[in-house]
Amino acid sequence: MIVQLPSWVSSIPLPVSASDEDVMNYVIELARANVRHATGGPFACAIVDDAGGVLGIGVNLVEQTQCSVFHAEMVAIVNASDHQASWDLGIRGPATLYSSAEPCAMCMGAIPWSGVHRIVVAARDVDVRAIGFDEGVKPIDWIDVYRRRGIDVTRDVLRDDAVAVLRAYAQGGGLLYNG
Amino acid sequence: MIVQLPSWVSSIPLPVSASDEDVMNYVIELARANVRHATGGPFACAIVDDAGGVLGIGVNLVEQTQCSVFHAEMVAIVNASDHQASWDLGIRGPATLYSSAEPCAMCMGAIPWSGVHRIVVAARDVDVRAIGFDEGVKPIDWIDVYRRRGIDVTRDVLRDDAVAVLRAYAQGGGLLYNG
Repeated sequence: MIVQLPSWVSSIPLPVSASDEDVMNYVIELARANVRHATGGPFACAIVDDAGGVLGIGVNLVEQTQCSVFHAEMVAIVNASDHQASWDLGIRGPATLYSSAEPCAMCMGAIPWSGVHRIVVAARDVDVRAIGFDEGVKPIDWIDVYRRRGIDVTRDVLRDDAVAVLRAYAQGGGLLYNG
Repeated sequence: MIVQLPSWVSSIPLPVSASDEDVMNYVIELARANVRHATGGPFACAIVDDAGGVLGIGVNLVEQTQCSVFHAEMVAIVNASDHQASWDLGIRGPATLYSSAEPCAMCMGAIPWSGVHRIVVAARDVDVRAIGFDEGVKPIDWIDVYRRRGIDVTRDVLRDDAVAVLRAYAQGGGLLYNG
């Protein structure tokens, strides 16, 4: 299988600064474009270094790849690993994963293996569930688990903007592809 | 990124029957061969239909792909999705995922999205941790969570054989690639 970003990704302007809001704005624009281009679910992700340099990008590719694994976070880890030629994305300095929504159980489990030092999320689990997606079962204290492992978690950055993309997808009759 | 099984995989004889022991024996032989050929960690997986037909195969490809995502279970889901041309591996009838070890937190989260109806595992978490791998943090009652979702779990099938492969990997100085 080839895991490949849609060609339109390069047309989205990169973050204008390394601030959480600017990077998240970029990620939400990716999610919005993924719905507009009908290339997958209403989710996107970027992994950036401390200078705001983009190490990897992900959009939801479950429909595109016909494979349940390729949530936005997973695609971003795959894309960043390709660019870094390493399974440890923290190898050249601290890396932060920005996701348009809180990670599901799979992505929650995957993120600590990727070597990122911090995650920033927009929509909450409850927002994702509200449009019919399943987030799976995570340890109730997963944020504390992350912190004990040295991964900081920041929530609710541009949450309303991300929720608007989720709602637009649901209203457009977007596919719910959970097993 | 291209996710591709090592070429030696086709040289391993397929399961001789659909029994749990025969399918697991095949999976453990894949894990053993993955170590012998130095193509990755000491883990393998197969997804089969009720007649014992192999829908997808996975071996650990973290080193090969330089990407932390590609544990054996994830590779098997990718491989089976490719063959089935569907993100729902249960689309043509019940499918069972056999893994040489209990799934880590990531794979535990991924399996319900794949549409398999049952999992069978050999080595336990404690066996995997004993050689230095991290399994992450799963809900304590993940097996009950699976059962409530209609996914049956069978453990300890050829556990000793799987543990022998884990130990051989550790004794050979195999890489521990957790983030």
